[in-house]
Amino acid sequence: MNEYNIMLDAKDMPDAWYNVASVIPEPLDPPLHPATHQPVTADDLGAIFPPSLIAQEMATEEWISIPGPVMDLYRLWRPSPLRRAYRLEKALGTPAKIYYKNESVSPSGSHKINTSIAQAYYNKQDGVMELTTETGAGQWGTALSIACAMLCMRCTVYMVRVSFEQKPYRRVLMETYGGIVKASPSEETDSGKAFLQKYPDTTGSLGMAISEAVEVAAKSGGLVKYSLGSVLNHVCLHQTIIGLEARKQLESVGEYPDIVIGCCGGGSNYAGISFPFVPDKVRDGKDIDFIAVEPTACPTLTRGLYAYDFGDTAEMTPLLKQYTLGHNFVPPGIHAGGLRYHGVAQTVAALTKQGVMRAVAVHQNPVFDALMLFSVTEGIVAAPESGHAVRVAIDEALKCKESGESKTILFNLSGHGHFDMTAYEAYLNKQLHDYELDQEVIDRAEECIPKL
Amino acid sequence: MNEYNIMLDAKDMPDAWYNVASVIPEPLDPPLHPATHQPVTADDLGAIFPPSLIAQEMATEEWISIPGPVMDLYRLWRPSPLRRAYRLEKALGTPAKIYYKNESVSPSGSHKINTSIAQAYYNKQDGVMELTTETGAGQWGTALSIACAMLCMRCTVYMVRVSFEQKPYRRVLMETYGGIVKASPSEETDSGKAFLQKYPDTTGSLGMAISEAVEVAAKSGGLVKYSLGSVLNHVCLHQTIIGLEARKQLESVGEYPDIVIGCCGGGSNYAGISFPFVPDKVRDGKDIDFIAVEPTACPTLTRGLYAYDFGDTAEMTPLLKQYTLGHNFVPPGIHAGGLRYHGVAQTVAALTKQGVMRAVAVHQNPVFDALMLFSVTEGIVAAPESGHAVRVAIDEALKCKESGESKTILFNLSGHGHFDMTAYEAYLNKQLHDYELDQEVIDRAEECIPKL
Repeated sequence: MNEYNIMLDAKDMPDAWYNVASVIPEPLDPPLHPATHQPVTADDLGAIFPPSLIAQEMATEEWISIPGPVMDLYRLWRPSPLRRAYRLEKALGTPAKIYYKNESVSPSGSHKINTSIAQAYYNKQDGVMELTTETGAGQWGTALSIACAMLCMRCTVYMVRVSFEQKPYRRVLMETYGGIVKASPSEETDSGKAFLQKYPDTTGSLGMAISEAVEVAAKSGGLVKYSLGSVLNHVCLHQTIIGLEARKQLESVGEYPDIVIGCCGGGSNYAGISFPFVPDKVRDGKDIDFIAVEPTACPTLTRGLYAYDFGDTAEMTPLLKQYTLGHNFVPPGIHAGGLRYHGVAQTVAALTKQGVMRAVAVHQNPVFDALMLFSVTEGIVAAPESGHAVRVAIDEALKCKESGESKTILFNLSGHGHFDMTAYEAYLNKQLHDYELDQEVIDRAEECIPKL
Repeated sequence: MNEYNIMLDAKDMPDAWYNVASVIPEPLDPPLHPATHQPVTADDLGAIFPPSLIAQEMATEEWISIPGPVMDLYRLWRPSPLRRAYRLEKALGTPAKIYYKNESVSPSGSHKINTSIAQAYYNKQDGVMELTTETGAGQWGTALSIACAMLCMRCTVYMVRVSFEQKPYRRVLMETYGGIVKASPSEETDSGKAFLQKYPDTTGSLGMAISEAVEVAAKSGGLVKYSLGSVLNHVCLHQTIIGLEARKQLESVGEYPDIVIGCCGGGSNYAGISFPFVPDKVRDGKDIDFIAVEPTACPTLTRGLYAYDFGDTAEMTPLLKQYTLGHNFVPPGIHAGGLRYHGVAQTVAALTKQGVMRAVAVHQNPVFDALMLFSVTEGIVAAPESGHAVRVAIDEALKCKESGESKTILFNLSGHGHFDMTAYEAYLNKQLHDYELDQEVIDRAEECIPKL
C-alpha cells in the first residue's frame, strides 16, 4: 500500500516550540534602536508588543512550552498531514523520496495561523483587547482575523489600497472572520493622512500600512498592540511546530531528510520546516542540505547585503542584522506576494551567513511549471509562494535521477492557491514575466542602508 | 484533551462501497426510457455510459469492492477527518455532541471527487479516452477535471455561459487541472447551435449544457462517454465512503449518531453520509433521525411531487421515480448553486417516501447566519450548500439545549466556500434574499411531468 498521508496522532503533537537562537554557532547581533543605534531594550518594544512576546523575542532557552489553550486551538487542524508525493516522484521518474508537510489544510489556508493564534493568545493574557496589523495580498490579515475571532479580540487590518480594491475576496474572507479591514493609507491615522497629503493618488504600500498599524498601537495606551506575521524571532519560533511534527512523522516511517526546502520571504515558513533539524547539523554533524528558495525578482539571500537594516520603508522599526536589498527596495510585481520582502529573519540570515543553510533563487515561470505538475499529480493547487519550494524539490529530485541517488527530500507546502487564480490564469495565458534584477538595483541597497 | 480531529488510519479505510438499493424496504421503480416509457435496458444506457458503471447503476448486492487504483487515489486525501465541533457546541451552550465529516479537505474542495475518480477509473478500464460533462458553478467540473488528469484522460466541460463569464476563477481552476472548458451553449454541437439559433442572447442553463455533453458522447462511437456528478445510483454509491469512514471514526470514540444530516440537491452528498447507517434503522430498528436539508427556494423533497420525471430540461434522460418540482422548474438565484436541482436521487426519494428519512427546507439568510458562526468557531469558511447542513445541525443542537438531551449529531461538511466569497459578501452587505415559492409555481410541476 502506498501510504500517501502520514498522520500524527493528536496526543503526539509536540507541546513545545524549538528556539533556534539557542543553537546558532555565532551569537546573533543585537537589534538596534532606529534612532539611537543602541541595542533595543524590552521597554523600547513595549509600546507595540506585549511583555510575553518581547520575552520570547529575546529568549535563549532551547524549548518553549506551548500553552494548553494554544494547543487546543492548534488541534482544530493540527497535526497537519505529511504527504509522500508518490505520484510526483513517478511523474519525474526519480529515485528520490519526496515528502511535504501540508499546511494548506489550516483554517486560514496557510501556515500563518500557527503564529497568529499564539500571538493573539499571549496578547490577550497580557490584557490586550485589540490587535492591528498590515496585510498585502491578505494571507496574514486572514490568519490574524481568525485568531482574534477565536480569542474574542478585535482585529484591525490595514490592507494596501491596491490589494483592497483588486482582491475583494480576500477582504470579504477577513470580514467573514470578523476582521475590520481598512484601505491603507486611510484617513484614520496621522501617518495615513500624511501619506495621502503627500501622495494623493497613492495605491499604498506595505511600508505605509505598517506605519498606520504601528501608530494605532503606539497611541492606544496599551489596550491595542501590533502584530507581525513574519521576520521576528517569536514568529519563527511559533512556526517550528511544522518541522517538529514533520520530524515525528518521518520517524514513524523510518525516514530522515537529506534535504529540507522552504520558500523564503520574511523567513517564517522556511524557519518552521527547517529550524527543528538545525541542531542535528550544528551539534551532531548530520549532513543536511537546508535550502531557502526565493524569487529572482526579490533575491534577498542570494544577492542582498549582510548588514543592519530597517524592517520598514518609514524607518520606524528596530535595525536588524540581516540580508537586505535595502528597505526602500520595491520588487517587480510577481504573484508570490508573500516573497516580496526586502529583508529576512535575522536567524535565517545568520544561519545562511555562517554556512549552515544555503539559498537559491528561481524564476516565476519555472515555478508555475512546477505548480502545474504538482496540481495534476498531487491534486493540490498550491500558492505561488509554495510553488518556489515545489520547484526546487523537483530540481533536487531530478538531480537524484541523474546521479541515481535515493535522497529523502522534505519541503513545506505553506498554503493553497485558491485566492491566487489570477496568477494561474496569467500563466495559462502565457502572460507571466520572469525578472532578473539589474546589478545596479542591488547596488542601490548599499546607499540605502543606515551607516552605523 | 479535546480531541477535535478524529483520524482514521489509512490502512483502516473502507475497501467497499455500500449499496443502499439492497436494503430499501420497497423495491425501486424501474427507470423508464424517455420515448417508449418502457424500463430502460443496459443497451439503452450504453450510448453514453460504460458497461461497468451501468452494471453498478443496476446492482443489487449490498457491498461493491473499491478497486485498488481507486483506493490509491482516494489515499491522496482520505480518510478525511471527522471533527468534533467543541467550539460550536460551546458557543451554542448545548449538551448535544456535534460531529462533522470534513470533505472540504479534498483536492477539489468538495465530496464530488469521491465519484469523479471512480467514474474516470471505470471508464478508462472500459476503453474510454475522454469524458464530457456539464457544470454550473464549477464544483463538479473541477472534480472531473482532476480525476481525468490523474488518470491521463481528456475532460471536456460544458459550463453554463453565465457562470463561464461570471466565475472566471472556477474556469481557471478546471483549466489548471487540464480540463477543456467551453461556454454553453457553444457552436461546437448541433444542440448548442440549435439553442443559439433559437435564443441568440441566452446565458445558458444546466439543461442545455447537459444536452451538449450528452450529444458529444452519444456521437463519439464509444471513445467518449458522459459523466454525471449526482442523482444516479452509482454516484450515490461512490459517496458512501464518507459515511463508512464516519461510522468507523465514531466507533473509535465510542459514539453512534442519533441524527444524521446532509444538504440535499441531487442527493449524492446526503446519500454519502447517510446510506451506510440506513440498514441499522431498516433492519435492526435503530432510532436514527435522517434529515435531508434543502433550500426553501428549491423544496424538492418537502413540497415536490413523488412521480416519474426527466432529469433534464430537454427530456433526453431516462424517467426516474423521484420527488420533483418539474423538469422545467427554474429556481430563484440562491447562492447554493449545487442545491438548485428540480429532482433528487431515486434512492433518497424512495427512502423519504417510505418514511425512513425526512427532509426540511431552510432559508438562505439563516443558512449564512449559521455559516458565520461556524467560521469563527470551527475556523472553516464553508460552501453555501454545506451551510444548509450546518444550519439544521445547529437547530437540532438548540432543541437539545431546550430538552436537556445529549444527542449525538453527525453531519457532512461537503465543501469549502473559497470560491463563494461573492455570496459571503452579499450576506455581509445584507443583500441576500429569502425565497418562499408560491404554491402556483409548485402546482405547475403537475402539468410539466410526463403522463404515463
